[in-house]
Amino acid sequence: MNFTDRLRQSQENHNSLICVGLDPDPLKLPRHLQGNDDGVAQFCRGIIGATKDVACAFKLNLAFFESLGDRGTAVLREVLAAVPKDIITIADGKRGDIGNSSAMYARSIMTDLRFDSATVHPYMGFDSVEPFAKDPSQGVFVLALTSNPGAKDLQYLKIGGKPLYEHVVRKVKSWNTAGNFGLVVGATRPVQLKQIRTLAPKMPLLIPGIGAQGGDLRKAVKDGCDATGALAVINVGRSILFASSGEDYADAARTAALALREEIGRYREQYFG
Amino acid sequence: MNFTDRLRQSQENHNSLICVGLDPDPLKLPRHLQGNDDGVAQFCRGIIGATKDVACAFKLNLAFFESLGDRGTAVLREVLAAVPKDIITIADGKRGDIGNSSAMYARSIMTDLRFDSATVHPYMGFDSVEPFAKDPSQGVFVLALTSNPGAKDLQYLKIGGKPLYEHVVRKVKSWNTAGNFGLVVGATRPVQLKQIRTLAPKMPLLIPGIGAQGGDLRKAVKDGCDATGALAVINVGRSILFASSGEDYADAARTAALALREEIGRYREQYFG
Repeated sequence: MNFTDRLRQSQENHNSLICVGLDPDPLKLPRHLQGNDDGVAQFCRGIIGATKDVACAFKLNLAFFESLGDRGTAVLREVLAAVPKDIITIADGKRGDIGNSSAMYARSIMTDLRFDSATVHPYMGFDSVEPFAKDPSQGVFVLALTSNPGAKDLQYLKIGGKPLYEHVVRKVKSWNTAGNFGLVVGATRPVQLKQIRTLAPKMPLLIPGIGAQGGDLRKAVKDGCDATGALAVINVGRSILFASSGEDYADAARTAALALREEIGRYREQYFG
Repeated sequence: MNFTDRLRQSQENHNSLICVGLDPDPLKLPRHLQGNDDGVAQFCRGIIGATKDVACAFKLNLAFFESLGDRGTAVLREVLAAVPKDIITIADGKRGDIGNSSAMYARSIMTDLRFDSATVHPYMGFDSVEPFAKDPSQGVFVLALTSNPGAKDLQYLKIGGKPLYEHVVRKVKSWNTAGNFGLVVGATRPVQLKQIRTLAPKMPLLIPGIGAQGGDLRKAVKDGCDATGALAVINVGRSILFASSGEDYADAARTAALALREEIGRYREQYFG
């Protein structure tokens, strides 16, 4: 089964478009887990346990695991192992290098750690991305239009009347012969999200930027989904992870995720029902 | 002292533009170091010891250290510690993420590991790059025109008659208020290298692609240096690292680096002497 179908299945099984973004900032952990060597792993396990039946995916932000230093990879491995097999995992590392170096990154992320998918930069082109896409059952989300302010520096530049991000979308479509490429499109760009979904009607879209970054959930669902109301992967980080800073953080995360799933369900019903 | 001046000083002290690219592929190590847990660290220490008076910089390719799994960061730390303080270190990780995630990468690379500089992707713009540039004594090399085949997918696209990589160069110049930004330009693009040096006459240029990738050393020196014959950082990897596959690998690396430095010296004399 190719990656797109696996994602679709995970969304159906859990009746959810929610991707829980695991950005475990050690300084934001509940107090009882702070300063504890096992704190980050314990926190993530708690979040995963409390939300695994409500999410279609877990996105692990590699920056936060790397920042743990020598223990980082072991903690990453431990957290990854806590995600049930039928839920998609995303290694959010935004890698991209010349072929033989990208192959080394892909060996770590796709082969050794066995993530289901990874995020990558488009700037270095096909040979920088291809090593991540060797196995059709594993997916690659290529950055198209990002949610951050700096997206404006290059991504909107016009080439032959069309913005750079649109050229990226077209390139990635041309690479997607095995059904395992997706795109990253920020929820903070609703007009462009709609346009990109029109350009790529059948590809998974990973959509960060809901919540702390200000993206609109209704528009992310309405304009990010495919014609069947699926394949939008709506990443939510801080508002689930840090729903409570107390010992009840996992329960609070579950409550937040359930409310979010219900809200998303209403929009799916309204626009695709 | 800002990063550009520190680099210039390292080039003067060692009379060298050579950056030794440490891409320690475990499968290419000399046989007596293969299958040895400490093999990669021992190999890199051997290379550093044999070339440290002949190089202005060491570039550590993070992909190869990550591929070591749980031991990766410890090995990276150990190899980094073997580089003398007066030689520039480059973390070649090509990172780039939204502000708070890039800040986590920068914390690992610039603060905890104390690399002198790092390579980054330009696609996500200023807030993705800025966390690496907080300390003016530490440098950031932004990818402009890369040495790999995939560079053609996006980097040459014309915007207002000018290629994307040129827009990147202009952006990075505008960010370079503290003298600590540089650019990555492949030696496999000699015409564009000359053009980029003209656009950015005073910035460090990190130039990969000599050797295995087919770049021309004479042109890299002639067109990559600033007006004083400096600030081109010519990365050489495989032809130094794997000059011999025997126990004499360090001596062979030294011989290769010395020959290269002499050849570069002749070109510097010829064009800037």
